[in-house]
Amino acid sequence: MEGTEVYLPSLSLDCVIFGFHENQLKVLLLKMKNAKEWCLPGGFILKNEDINEAVKRVLKERTGLSKIFLQQFNVFGKPKRSDSNFHRNILRKDGIELKNDHWLFRRFVTIGYYALVEYSYVNPRPDSFSDYCTWRDIDDLPKLMMDHRQILDKALQILRSHLRYHPIGYNLLPEKFTMPQLQRLYETILHKKLDRRNFQRKILSYGIMKRLKEVKTGGAHKAPYLYSFDLPNYHKALEEGLQGGW
Amino acid sequence: MEGTEVYLPSLSLDCVIFGFHENQLKVLLLKMKNAKEWCLPGGFILKNEDINEAVKRVLKERTGLSKIFLQQFNVFGKPKRSDSNFHRNILRKDGIELKNDHWLFRRFVTIGYYALVEYSYVNPRPDSFSDYCTWRDIDDLPKLMMDHRQILDKALQILRSHLRYHPIGYNLLPEKFTMPQLQRLYETILHKKLDRRNFQRKILSYGIMKRLKEVKTGGAHKAPYLYSFDLPNYHKALEEGLQGGW
Repeated sequence: MEGTEVYLPSLSLDCVIFGFHENQLKVLLLKMKNAKEWCLPGGFILKNEDINEAVKRVLKERTGLSKIFLQQFNVFGKPKRSDSNFHRNILRKDGIELKNDHWLFRRFVTIGYYALVEYSYVNPRPDSFSDYCTWRDIDDLPKLMMDHRQILDKALQILRSHLRYHPIGYNLLPEKFTMPQLQRLYETILHKKLDRRNFQRKILSYGIMKRLKEVKTGGAHKAPYLYSFDLPNYHKALEEGLQGGW
Repeated sequence: MEGTEVYLPSLSLDCVIFGFHENQLKVLLLKMKNAKEWCLPGGFILKNEDINEAVKRVLKERTGLSKIFLQQFNVFGKPKRSDSNFHRNILRKDGIELKNDHWLFRRFVTIGYYALVEYSYVNPRPDSFSDYCTWRDIDDLPKLMMDHRQILDKALQILRSHLRYHPIGYNLLPEKFTMPQLQRLYETILHKKLDRRNFQRKILSYGIMKRLKEVKTGGAHKAPYLYSFDLPNYHKALEEGLQGGW
């Protein structure tokens, strides 16, 4: 069956899945069989499928990941997003020769989605088109196919700017955490050192955390305070943005 | 010529153009001939056209507006965005009967763009499909076709939340303005009263304005200070978001 009978023509989806674990920021990439470059997990939309459901299905099919909160961040719609022989060359190595007007050779506008997960909690596995499905260090990325590097860079820029307006950390840190743990999460994503006192003052001013009566024990230094997120306030800030105040 | 030979299938664009003038917030709507409901200005993408160029062309063709800074804000991709007889009924009143598989009857995913302009500076005019192209009050909207009301509501929500992170006012206020003028712009968009002192403290803390040596003259009260935007800082904040500080 032709792809155009199953999928919406012209439209695709691509997922930038960032993973955080122990002060490292990674991104989930696939390496398709016969391709030299790596790629973002992506795919197409079924004729009768909501796009926000399609992206969940695509991510699950290509990486095994489910229950991930994915957010639209940008549509990439330049007329030439790839060399027109790009797909042809990959398929040819697989012994597949497609007609010149095959739907895969047409132009696709792609909708970018991103997510941030604790990567030790999830277990990615490659689909049948791919040799690998792996977390790759954000500072040491392989060559990516088509415009996937631009898509990734844009997602990273959006993730960093969202830090300023949206709470982050729930599902990425243990239920009870210390201020230095939270600060390192921010530092890892922003890729820079932050001033300890400014950070603490600012984070506490948002009213999304509560200091617990317990302290963290077992360290060599003075036991640091433990915090947890104030979930009602945290979710309110997710909806309405941090700071409010107008 | 069939639309599918000229345009990318499955994809459309819709523009939510907000207009501000003298403490009023409006939105630009079209009323197509033979349609009962109003609609957002929208259209399709040429086969070889960048989507961000397409939206400028569409807006120009349908409303006469040009040089508007349009921003993507969301993709609307539910499978049933309109009654399948919707376009058919409009065209039928025009004496046009299209085949059942006509491309206009297929499913469209639409990319939403928005902009905010000073509406006394622009001069909208309807295209040949439309009877009217007019600024309508945000508090007194007519019935809109398809899911255009949802698209408009989402754009308004995004505009309001952007106020917290992005500077606003340049191109909407005179070059020199008073603090009350700026406050009324915010109040109009947010649709609520703001505390004068909080507003002033917060706005000044962003470092995007400078107080001029002149005062506004001619009023009955104490002459208020005049301000203008510090354009380098204003543009930096547009790029990087307000407050920064991490």
